[in-house]
Amino acid sequence: MLKNLYASMPADTTREAFDDLLAVPGLRIERIVSHGQESPPDFWYEQDGDEWVIVLRGRAALEVHGEETLVWLEAGDHYWIPAGLRHRVASTAKDGPTIWLAVHRP
Amino acid sequence: MLKNLYASMPADTTREAFDDLLAVPGLRIERIVSHGQESPPDFWYEQDGDEWVIVLRGRAALEVHGEETLVWLEAGDHYWIPAGLRHRVASTAKDGPTIWLAVHRP
Repeated sequence: MLKNLYASMPADTTREAFDDLLAVPGLRIERIVSHGQESPPDFWYEQDGDEWVIVLRGRAALEVHGEETLVWLEAGDHYWIPAGLRHRVASTAKDGPTIWLAVHRP
Repeated sequence: MLKNLYASMPADTTREAFDDLLAVPGLRIERIVSHGQESPPDFWYEQDGDEWVIVLRGRAALEVHGEETLVWLEAGDHYWIPAGLRHRVASTAKDGPTIWLAVHRP
């Protein structure tokens, strides 16, 4: 469990890193660090629980199934992903880490 | 409802500012901006719901009832405040804004 959001940044930048900041019954808060990764072209997340995400460093684009325009997220931008909303990460910054905070409600 | 965490920073720095980023049944996510404010000496928060806080800019100290040492929070530090835990804000940075993100589970 990470004690600080900016601590222990992943050394391996070839894949996304997922670390919990909090995990209690009914609530999980996670740090995600991306380095240019994106979801595979035909991959869609479709989650049983609700998720709220905020980008704190870097930038990213989300694709929501059935929507033509991407959701661009820069530092401070947040987005609500209700359970069942099909989405994928279309892109993340390639010039440095993108740090997300994700609040999951299972 | 704020669209970006760093948008619309409060012009009035003489009091703390509270703005929701998300409010759905069972989950509320709030930005708090402090400018040197602290809780009154004998005031204690004692909340019905759980709260998770993270300081993203600035710094702050929390006092937990019955604990001798303060909880110091710098950028990236987070803290879990379960329902009923009596606490107060002992201090916040006086040289600039302290930006908190608070996740409330009523």
